[in-house]
Amino acid sequence: MTQVEIGRGKSGRRAYALDEIGIVPSRRTRDPEEVSIAWQIDAYRFDLPLVVAPMDSVVSPRTAVEVGRLGGLAVLDIEGLWTRYPDPEPLLAEAAELDDDAATRRLQEIYAEPIKEELIGRRIEEVRAAGVTAAARLSPQRTVRYYKAVIDAGADIFVIRGTTVSAEHVSGQSEPLNLKQFIYELDVPVIVGGCATYTAALHLMRTGAAGVLAGFGGGSGHTTAAVLGVAVPMATAIADVAAARRDYLDESGGRYAHVIADGSMTRSGDIAKALALGADAVMVGSPFARATQAPGNGFHWGSEVHHPELPRGTRLRVGTVGTIEQILHGPSTVADGSMNLMGALRRTMATSGYSDLKEFQRVEVVVAPGAPRR
Amino acid sequence: MTQVEIGRGKSGRRAYALDEIGIVPSRRTRDPEEVSIAWQIDAYRFDLPLVVAPMDSVVSPRTAVEVGRLGGLAVLDIEGLWTRYPDPEPLLAEAAELDDDAATRRLQEIYAEPIKEELIGRRIEEVRAAGVTAAARLSPQRTVRYYKAVIDAGADIFVIRGTTVSAEHVSGQSEPLNLKQFIYELDVPVIVGGCATYTAALHLMRTGAAGVLAGFGGGSGHTTAAVLGVAVPMATAIADVAAARRDYLDESGGRYAHVIADGSMTRSGDIAKALALGADAVMVGSPFARATQAPGNGFHWGSEVHHPELPRGTRLRVGTVGTIEQILHGPSTVADGSMNLMGALRRTMATSGYSDLKEFQRVEVVVAPGAPRR
Amino acid sequence: MTQVEIGRGKSGRRAYALDEIGIVPSRRTRDPEEVSIAWQIDAYRFDLPLVVAPMDSVVSPRTAVEVGRLGGLAVLDIEGLWTRYPDPEPLLAEAAELDDDAATRRLQEIYAEPIKEELIGRRIEEVRAAGVTAAARLSPQRTVRYYKAVIDAGADIFVIRGTTVSAEHVSGQSEPLNLKQFIYELDVPVIVGGCATYTAALHLMRTGAAGVLAGFGGGSGHTTAAVLGVAVPMATAIADVAAARRDYLDESGGRYAHVIADGSMTRSGDIAKALALGADAVMVGSPFARATQAPGNGFHWGSEVHHPELPRGTRLRVGTVGTIEQILHGPSTVADGSMNLMGALRRTMATSGYSDLKEFQRVEVVVAPGAPRR
Amino acid sequence: MTQVEIGRGKSGRRAYALDEIGIVPSRRTRDPEEVSIAWQIDAYRFDLPLVVAPMDSVVSPRTAVEVGRLGGLAVLDIEGLWTRYPDPEPLLAEAAELDDDAATRRLQEIYAEPIKEELIGRRIEEVRAAGVTAAARLSPQRTVRYYKAVIDAGADIFVIRGTTVSAEHVSGQSEPLNLKQFIYELDVPVIVGGCATYTAALHLMRTGAAGVLAGFGGGSGHTTAAVLGVAVPMATAIADVAAARRDYLDESGGRYAHVIADGSMTRSGDIAKALALGADAVMVGSPFARATQAPGNGFHWGSEVHHPELPRGTRLRVGTVGTIEQILHGPSTVADGSMNLMGALRRTMATSGYSDLKEFQRVEVVVAPGAPRR
Repeated sequence: MTQVEIGRGKSGRRAYALDEIGIVPSRRTRDPEEVSIAWQIDAYRFDLPLVVAPMDSVVSPRTAVEVGRLGGLAVLDIEGLWTRYPDPEPLLAEAAELDDDAATRRLQEIYAEPIKEELIGRRIEEVRAAGVTAAARLSPQRTVRYYKAVIDAGADIFVIRGTTVSAEHVSGQSEPLNLKQFIYELDVPVIVGGCATYTAALHLMRTGAAGVLAGFGGGSGHTTAAVLGVAVPMATAIADVAAARRDYLDESGGRYAHVIADGSMTRSGDIAKALALGADAVMVGSPFARATQAPGNGFHWGSEVHHPELPRGTRLRVGTVGTIEQILHGPSTVADGSMNLMGALRRTMATSGYSDLKEFQRVEVVVAPGAPRR
Repeated sequence: MTQVEIGRGKSGRRAYALDEIGIVPSRRTRDPEEVSIAWQIDAYRFDLPLVVAPMDSVVSPRTAVEVGRLGGLAVLDIEGLWTRYPDPEPLLAEAAELDDDAATRRLQEIYAEPIKEELIGRRIEEVRAAGVTAAARLSPQRTVRYYKAVIDAGADIFVIRGTTVSAEHVSGQSEPLNLKQFIYELDVPVIVGGCATYTAALHLMRTGAAGVLAGFGGGSGHTTAAVLGVAVPMATAIADVAAARRDYLDESGGRYAHVIADGSMTRSGDIAKALALGADAVMVGSPFARATQAPGNGFHWGSEVHHPELPRGTRLRVGTVGTIEQILHGPSTVADGSMNLMGALRRTMATSGYSDLKEFQRVEVVVAPGAPRR
Repeated sequence: MTQVEIGRGKSGRRAYALDEIGIVPSRRTRDPEEVSIAWQIDAYRFDLPLVVAPMDSVVSPRTAVEVGRLGGLAVLDIEGLWTRYPDPEPLLAEAAELDDDAATRRLQEIYAEPIKEELIGRRIEEVRAAGVTAAARLSPQRTVRYYKAVIDAGADIFVIRGTTVSAEHVSGQSEPLNLKQFIYELDVPVIVGGCATYTAALHLMRTGAAGVLAGFGGGSGHTTAAVLGVAVPMATAIADVAAARRDYLDESGGRYAHVIADGSMTRSGDIAKALALGADAVMVGSPFARATQAPGNGFHWGSEVHHPELPRGTRLRVGTVGTIEQILHGPSTVADGSMNLMGALRRTMATSGYSDLKEFQRVEVVVAPGAPRR
Repeated sequence: MTQVEIGRGKSGRRAYALDEIGIVPSRRTRDPEEVSIAWQIDAYRFDLPLVVAPMDSVVSPRTAVEVGRLGGLAVLDIEGLWTRYPDPEPLLAEAAELDDDAATRRLQEIYAEPIKEELIGRRIEEVRAAGVTAAARLSPQRTVRYYKAVIDAGADIFVIRGTTVSAEHVSGQSEPLNLKQFIYELDVPVIVGGCATYTAALHLMRTGAAGVLAGFGGGSGHTTAAVLGVAVPMATAIADVAAARRDYLDESGGRYAHVIADGSMTRSGDIAKALALGADAVMVGSPFARATQAPGNGFHWGSEVHHPELPRGTRLRVGTVGTIEQILHGPSTVADGSMNLMGALRRTMATSGYSDLKEFQRVEVVVAPGAPRR
């Protein structure tokens, strides 16, 4: 690890963002059609290594079904509007019409409505009824309170997602979630995160999680670096968490904890880079906010936008470019990396000479801060 | 120290700005409510490690009282409008209505009015009357002339602040301020600065100062780098001055000279980074220029703006976002790191697994010039 | 090679863009008029080391003739509009009038028209009739299908150009092009690429290619980095491919495979840098889209813009600055490096003290990411 | 020298721009009034280490006199409008009213007018008549033809200035200027440049030049990097040329060849940095284009703008801020480093603890690419 001396007695490691990385083709090329981008976690196999993030602007029960049918996985946010309101659509429509200045305050109000336990089951069932894998997300703070409702409704995959989730939360007020015991007792596979370092990831893997989210989530509109000063650039975070996966595989005698990169990926090239750096799959939000079916109606926001005390993101106007199918599989009508995400990934792998994701994790990359970003 | 060869025979150290730094969460997390951010200098204990800078756009006697009541410390500028005019409010109102082009010249005129000794006492008493800690600032050039009025009025903490203050000022014209003797003879604790290197800081600490300002002050609107070519990026400056604190603690047999980072911090994330790099507290101005109670009425300027011969800053329009209380403690209604500064700091520390400021100075950081800055 | 650790277990080489490079004059200067910039590949000698890229916005049979008469080489795109339509000019005119938003979709439609074999011959003959060297380009995917028509029409130089072309394409569906055998059996010299690494280039050279394209082509409007994540900055790519040329020269016992830099060069200074880094010649497009005779009528696009499934570039409005002759040889009436490309190159070489291209490949360069880019 | 590998077999040195440098105050401070910034070259002593560049937008006979009276030196351009036209003022007025688009072409026309030998003497005499030091510039190409007229008119200092001037110009067409012999035979001191490397500077010093211009001149509007690809960042260039001065001093047994930084300095902070890196004086243009007396009437251009074949700069609108006296000595009414250049330099030196220029060349600097540039 390259330690850089910031000042006398304080050093830091040089860490890299995805924008500073470039994938280098090998001396072979392949046909994109012959590339496999399938991914499997626990008993669930997906044609695509793509998880749509639990954000109200992208995942509704309806879009979760559509993503599932197309080969991916979309995660319902159990703390979002769909479990706070029987019919959130008028509020989603209102959210899309707010002035930028007023958006943060009004979203704070809308999300002040309590979660309704009965709606949790209803939303999960809406997804299951369509025959696709149902995944649901809670924050670590609310997991103890609501997980039973999630499990009872038959969720296939349980996601515990916060900005930073540690295996060891210290609290004097309440008994914190004991992740290891919780996961041990649960019947369904658990994906947990974010985390951004080798050590934090290794501890999360030791809880028995089937997958770990690498990164702090958010990306497009988040302002974590400005508000908290917390920042671990994604390229380094992904590579480190992937290293934890390798070491945990060894120390556990064969348990493969999947690494799902989460955050800072808005273009198809970012997805390819995340996988090239060692991720098994990616969790993305903003590209799907641009779908015709997106509940955000051309706007995008995550839960960090409406935090009641300390908002750490802004609602973004992203516009609409095409159907979920087009965003996943094309054809694309734009050139900015926001459509045909999976076709682009296949092409990157083919151009680089790789035929499956596990091999592609070894592709050569360069560090190129001065290269054009387009 | 990493020396870089600029050309044959001229090397310089690679120095880092706060924007190039990111805080890395550890493997533990905590509840933000259980984090202590209290700070003590000499006999004065503060709930918050935050000093509001002596600038006319942010500190009036009234806002100094409000900041004190809320747990911080605001420093009166004894060379500002409040000691030049019995009632500066019409001038403050005028300053907020000037065209950008005319602002520098008109501020030069307004500040040409001499300081009135009788007003010094009155302003300090206005703060003391409210029962909060009273701090007052003079420049090194005027300290000899006005310090008695400051002390006589009962100031609790004496601040000597210039762009660069050295322990050894050389002058052929007049007897320069002998800092060591001055501080020795004074009954109140002295905070002195700015300085930006280990050696300069160590010499300031040896004068007996209770606290040293690390950095050159200014931030938002200052143009020191363009006008003077003088620039020491804050991350390196803070770490170096903190190293001087450690060495001075040893050589002095136990005197702890507080390091107060001063300059280049406009967002809550910057404050967290300054503390992570070794500061004991921070001095900030611009976030408070956005308070509803701010005397600058939505504009911000420091003394470098109205220098009669060589202005080195511009008056900035910053707008108004909320009360001083909201800016300090939230709730925040914006996502840019300009409100709920202290709530954000608690959250950063909790997310990183730290429970007090002294421990947090050891948090891991990365050097990440390519990471998104938001 | 400087390996940089991105994260645990994943390193990448630090790679450089042309923008990060500066040419350093030696201690001698020369007269620009006495500098030779002639270039020879196989039996073809050119006064200029400049190949105009096979793009519909710059190369028509007419402009190919003009470039040839002026000392350069322009490559016809056998998969462009001139072989899809008997008279493409109305479509070129339409393409120049499209809204930016509609451009990608409409270009996708226009290029959906099949290639007409009979037009291939006609276009090549139009160039040959003028007595200049005729070069024609096919993609590797279509080379097998159309190369006979190209050869039969008497093309002098055959160009196989794709984003990434490898010597070893793996395909289960169809028999891929066996480059080595293909080139061996062909009577005309072949230029093939792009490629961006030492290894890929060495393998392409071993196929017997007379020239290799270094880089991925495109530049102005391409979005490969955003869409695919693939990016090898040009300065490093050119130097590496030039190193392959040296090693292939040795291993082959004297075969000199020409290195033609292709991509990311829009200004005359970029051309000089590419040659300084080891290229024998350059392939450029966008500067010629600004010619009064350019078929793009002030707009510029490459084949990546109208890919039916995954467009990876945008049509750019570039405007018109002067004739092809002015763009090549001046006089220039602008100061942005887009006119008098060859006069600028002569001047750079003269200023640096070099009198021919082969020597100039050894000129000293600096790495200067912080230098002004103008 | 830090060599960086760009690609296999091609390395370059990492070079630094002034923007990447910051001056670090020492542990002492001084009174600005007690700082000496005097400079002497040959028998000529100047109160200020400032030479105004031979550019028509800044130096007329009248402004040369004014600069001289105020303690600096302004160089007449013997190839500018004042020697081409008996009364250039109508043309200067016209140049200031041209559209940006038309400016380059019209300036090319205006400067096509031949130089009149009789005007050379007249202009120099206009300066001498006022009793200030007269300096005149020719390009190396025209030195042989016109130098006699310059010397006969009584110029005190002779300046040979081109973008790159070498001690060894190779030409087959004409006998090139033999600098060494030329300088030996001339009675007046010669300043020659630009150059940007140790070796080129050392060879220029060996010709007997009293001063060497470090850098390629130009700055504000020049586009040399884009047009020629030639770029040596100024911080590195100055330090290297200063190293040549030290080595030449030794090898010559005591001849001190003055280093005058020339180019890329538009703000007072840049001037301080150039001196901190080893320059003895600076040559600047653009700040004086903003003088009320400037012949450019608020516009700025150098000879690279109107090159008949290959313009390498643009005419800039710079506006007007104050008199030459204010620009040199203040008071300043702006905060961008464009007024009170010499007051700012005194303050930088005082803040850093230095009392004369020779000592100040040893001031500590940091390399701070990430620091704010204002």
